[in-house]
Amino acid sequence: MTPRLATIPASLPDSVPFVGPETLERRRGAPFCARLGANENGFGPSPLAIEAMRAAAAEVWKYGDPTNHDLKQALARHCGCDAGNIVVGEGVDGLLGLAVRLLVDAGDRVVTSDGGYPTFDFHVAGFGGQLLRVPYRDDMQDPLALVARAAGAGARMVYLCNPDNPMGGWHPPEVIEAAVAALPADMLMILDEAYVEFAPALPRIDPADPRVLRMRSFSKAHGMAGARIGYAIGAPSLVAAFDRVRNHFGVNGVAQAGALAALGDSAHLGLTRARVAAARVRIAEIAAVNGLAVLPSATNFVAVDCGGDGDFARRIVEGLAARGVFVRMPWVAPQNRCIRVSCGPDSELDAFADALPEALAGARG
Amino acid sequence: MTPRLATIPASLPDSVPFVGPETLERRRGAPFCARLGANENGFGPSPLAIEAMRAAAAEVWKYGDPTNHDLKQALARHCGCDAGNIVVGEGVDGLLGLAVRLLVDAGDRVVTSDGGYPTFDFHVAGFGGQLLRVPYRDDMQDPLALVARAAGAGARMVYLCNPDNPMGGWHPPEVIEAAVAALPADMLMILDEAYVEFAPALPRIDPADPRVLRMRSFSKAHGMAGARIGYAIGAPSLVAAFDRVRNHFGVNGVAQAGALAALGDSAHLGLTRARVAAARVRIAEIAAVNGLAVLPSATNFVAVDCGGDGDFARRIVEGLAARGVFVRMPWVAPQNRCIRVSCGPDSELDAFADALPEALAGARG
Repeated sequence: MTPRLATIPASLPDSVPFVGPETLERRRGAPFCARLGANENGFGPSPLAIEAMRAAAAEVWKYGDPTNHDLKQALARHCGCDAGNIVVGEGVDGLLGLAVRLLVDAGDRVVTSDGGYPTFDFHVAGFGGQLLRVPYRDDMQDPLALVARAAGAGARMVYLCNPDNPMGGWHPPEVIEAAVAALPADMLMILDEAYVEFAPALPRIDPADPRVLRMRSFSKAHGMAGARIGYAIGAPSLVAAFDRVRNHFGVNGVAQAGALAALGDSAHLGLTRARVAAARVRIAEIAAVNGLAVLPSATNFVAVDCGGDGDFARRIVEGLAARGVFVRMPWVAPQNRCIRVSCGPDSELDAFADALPEALAGARG
Repeated sequence: MTPRLATIPASLPDSVPFVGPETLERRRGAPFCARLGANENGFGPSPLAIEAMRAAAAEVWKYGDPTNHDLKQALARHCGCDAGNIVVGEGVDGLLGLAVRLLVDAGDRVVTSDGGYPTFDFHVAGFGGQLLRVPYRDDMQDPLALVARAAGAGARMVYLCNPDNPMGGWHPPEVIEAAVAALPADMLMILDEAYVEFAPALPRIDPADPRVLRMRSFSKAHGMAGARIGYAIGAPSLVAAFDRVRNHFGVNGVAQAGALAALGDSAHLGLTRARVAAARVRIAEIAAVNGLAVLPSATNFVAVDCGGDGDFARRIVEGLAARGVFVRMPWVAPQNRCIRVSCGPDSELDAFADALPEALAGARG
């Protein structure tokens, strides 16, 4: 007899949402030369953010401000809302977990896309929620179908990622706004906007609307994935409820300093957007040279349609990895006919361009 | 009608375990000149750790390794156990929350000391656990009484902090080992060893014992509170279960690099221990000059017995804060007759020495 796990953890499978590139590197016994699989931003953070983090490193003996006061004030100005609409947390992943914990009782239904973000599914399962899945439509999440399914099922929560990971597509503001308008009064939409800085336009959503929680990241456009800091925008009562469960001193003080500096460097953000746009074009060119098409992207990655099934795409992913190029792929059919290539510096895209023909040939075997 | 909270969060009070010094500084409209309230380590981290974090800041566009592989290997060597005995997380606070989530169902009993670490209580309440409290005995936690109470109540978990926060006392190895020996087979002891590097000796506990999870920190002796990184040592099956619920990519990559460097700098740790020991003597001298006694400490802080009740001590804490000196105090009687002063550099202790007479006089007012 040993200490037993609580009911929900005891029922969970031993699973990991994502295998990290370091694990793959250890398995193959060599580092990757191109790290294009996790939608990290290889163009890097603002030099001002790096400088702020370097300065903050010497002050790391202090806990970070548990209220994230200064960053929340800056974010409120940036987003045109009040600081009371903002909660800062350990990345979108951390905030997703807290949001599920706050809203979902064991057995409650939660609706997401079949093939949507696995870490969200991980958190829903982790609190005993029952996941209902709506298929992609034309390689896009289907906002109105998601809300309709959630309403029909009496779900507590519906998840929508826009722009979308893993396919890269984007719904214009009016589509998102129509989905929000269709939300029942007692349902919460998690609108994951981790990639929103790459989108042409943002939906207008009242930050006081209790039915929507928008998630934002410093991991993607701001190039600070390793800092583990993100935020959510929502109604003050919901935002305040995070204080009931969050790890109050959980946000890294160095990350707070870096995020504040990154937010202030709009010039660097503009540069990043331009670099990412150019890299998307480059990825499309590499694909075309190899006879492959790409899907439209409003993110910092591109889904390359490999024209076969999931097994074929997986062989390409493995063939690229064997040649030192780390990419990932969508996780359900038919989207898993694609591979997902993150935007990165030319040297990394060169490595992708070099490896793809052989990886394709090997996959066709 | 708005989205409603899940059952447990809906039942929780709006509470915050600790008010951070930044909030107090904003309230008083001026920064503190001495930050001696949160048991941070004002002597700072190893210069090697700072250098590693500065270098890692430029690489922050990468997610940290979700397996914390290199750090776990180093910790295993350091602790004389296997990497499979170690889980790395976002500080002890984060690991405490995960441990409670893994073990405690709503209504399950958990035993701690009355006046023990509030953040642990926060997590237990946050998962619906029922807290049972055992009083301090001679200003010390009472290990055998904690275990006996837990066994009698059929508790799932018992919490013990050694060396102890907030009083600073320390039980020698044989006392802890006896408490462990008395644990029922199905009970988990959380042995919070956040301050263990300041203790004269460590208990010997089989890392494969499924009844004990030891928590360790980089926030105290290693001076990296703002980095939010800590670890736990336990049986492989329990350690593996953290993968079911943890935020896999949650540990800051800069913190991983800093922790690895800090762990390798035993010379700096020795220097820190010496500085802390000297600061404890200095705090005792300052107390003595003011007619106050101190309690024995095996930590990086000292409980100063102010000789009155909790209201008297609170007036001293407020008087010190008004004079720019941040300290905290124990939270229940009779321990709350004390104030808790963290060890820090001479300049900060000078400020404490300067402010204490007036704060005392004001409290006696």
